[in-house]
Amino acid sequence: VVTAGDVLLRIQGSDLRALPRLATLVENEDPRALEALDALFPLTGQAQVVGVTGPPGAGKSTLIAALLGHVRAASRRVAVLAVDPSSPISGGAVLGDRIRMMDRHADDGVFVRSMASRGRQGGLAWATARLVHLLDAVGYPLILIETVGTGQDGTDIASLADTVLVVESPGLGDGVQAIKSGLLEVADIVAVNKADQPGAEDAQRLLRASFNLAHPSHGRSVPILPTVGITGSGMSELLAAIDDHAAWLAESGQRAVRRERGARAEVLAGLRAALDRRLEAGPVRSPELADLIGRVARRDLSPRRAVNALVVALDSPASGRSIGD
Amino acid sequence: VVTAGDVLLRIQGSDLRALPRLATLVENEDPRALEALDALFPLTGQAQVVGVTGPPGAGKSTLIAALLGHVRAASRRVAVLAVDPSSPISGGAVLGDRIRMMDRHADDGVFVRSMASRGRQGGLAWATARLVHLLDAVGYPLILIETVGTGQDGTDIASLADTVLVVESPGLGDGVQAIKSGLLEVADIVAVNKADQPGAEDAQRLLRASFNLAHPSHGRSVPILPTVGITGSGMSELLAAIDDHAAWLAESGQRAVRRERGARAEVLAGLRAALDRRLEAGPVRSPELADLIGRVARRDLSPRRAVNALVVALDSPASGRSIGD
Repeated sequence: VVTAGDVLLRIQGSDLRALPRLATLVENEDPRALEALDALFPLTGQAQVVGVTGPPGAGKSTLIAALLGHVRAASRRVAVLAVDPSSPISGGAVLGDRIRMMDRHADDGVFVRSMASRGRQGGLAWATARLVHLLDAVGYPLILIETVGTGQDGTDIASLADTVLVVESPGLGDGVQAIKSGLLEVADIVAVNKADQPGAEDAQRLLRASFNLAHPSHGRSVPILPTVGITGSGMSELLAAIDDHAAWLAESGQRAVRRERGARAEVLAGLRAALDRRLEAGPVRSPELADLIGRVARRDLSPRRAVNALVVALDSPASGRSIGD
Repeated sequence: VVTAGDVLLRIQGSDLRALPRLATLVENEDPRALEALDALFPLTGQAQVVGVTGPPGAGKSTLIAALLGHVRAASRRVAVLAVDPSSPISGGAVLGDRIRMMDRHADDGVFVRSMASRGRQGGLAWATARLVHLLDAVGYPLILIETVGTGQDGTDIASLADTVLVVESPGLGDGVQAIKSGLLEVADIVAVNKADQPGAEDAQRLLRASFNLAHPSHGRSVPILPTVGITGSGMSELLAAIDDHAAWLAESGQRAVRRERGARAEVLAGLRAALDRRLEAGPVRSPELADLIGRVARRDLSPRRAVNALVVALDSPASGRSIGD
């Protein structure tokens, strides 16, 4: 059993051996771990949180592995959270190889974790934010979050980041997927990965034109950088761009704006998670729900009328519960 | 102003000119239109609803346009809902061209609509289901929904479909994206689109092996069909596979199982939408929220404690409202 006091003592002693176990407890919403996290929260806000997003197939995981190698070669500490369920990081393959290659499996300068998102009904951004706070509080100065970046969870997770890195690559179907999906609107840095493949220069040109047309980004121009994740080419420039963005955030006053936006996204994600939990605890298990669903399936009752009937059940005081209690 | 009575009269007279306007009213949750939809609901359940999903860049929109041409050439009526925000159908480009090419802009055998999903906070599946019911009630026997298929909304939308068609294509990064993202688990039919490009046969082989290993799909084997959306190659086989699946659903008793699952997904999506609406009406606008978010941003209060404070506000009777009132 880990108490808040234990954790604080260990962290003050720079003992990070307890971290993986604590992260698991936080992820499982262990009440004592959540209390520990409340106690640690004032220590957060030091890290640069980088959201790494982009269409499937752009090579996000490979790029992150290469960036990680580069960051560690500079003796900087870094943590990675993989939230994308299709990420090879979730299976451990890509980063596992890279870390083994670097012979650093006992290296506490690197922390890698994949969030189990399959089967989780929403609440992913809320759960991700908690792990970010933990890693921030225990002193990782750079935290990378790999995410798909779309949907409610993706948007919320992007809001948690100080810096959004969008990874695109040539040859992902027609046009530039990041433009089509609206990801560019949140980009602070764009990496055109697999830049050694045909079409990379076209993709860069198209991205540059798109920014010139539509994305002033607070007067700051968005760097568009060629990278090759597999070989590690372009990693110096990418890390420099991340550092430049951190400096710009501090100087421009945008950091405070983003932190406020991030706090808002997190609190609202938490509220949604609380409401989902209430659904699971109340209406979802009620015999009334099964009956109403059967009637809807038989076309005997409209879905809207079924929902209105269930909303009443939500208002019974018995279904009220707070988060993590 | 459209009343339920008007709509029923018009539909009984096979006058579909009012349909686009009615669809807009339904999408905007106009109270009278929602009542009309309640009245129409017993007429639903006749259509074959096909969810078309797959990774960005697989060519879903082009494939749908080709399928549409094929369906119309057979004098069958069909409706398309584009839910994927990156779909060119949303911009009207792909289908617009195709429909102009067919000289059918006044053809009431085709109905095409894109759902505005940008900026919508959840509730997309709930809104999509309503339009599906409308199109079903007014007699479109085949309804295609184009969706990204991931996230809560994507999963819910897939649950609304009788048949899930997963579109994959070669050359979308490493491996087969549909396998990595878990989309195959819900596939009833797989189209390997852009089958004239290098790697298409490898992709088919990989998909077949993946199904043999892991996806018995109720004893039914999942057809894996090569298609070329741009030329229309493979459309006969694809339409035949959709028809075969409809027949199988009816014979096997799986249709009733899926309809029940769809009703469940829809009612829960509606409950989530009701709760989100309550968030928007209550806590999101409260001065208390702004204050709590400011304290979280300053690291003065943990997000969990902020959420717990706000959950109390949700329980005030003043914030209770039903859907569509």
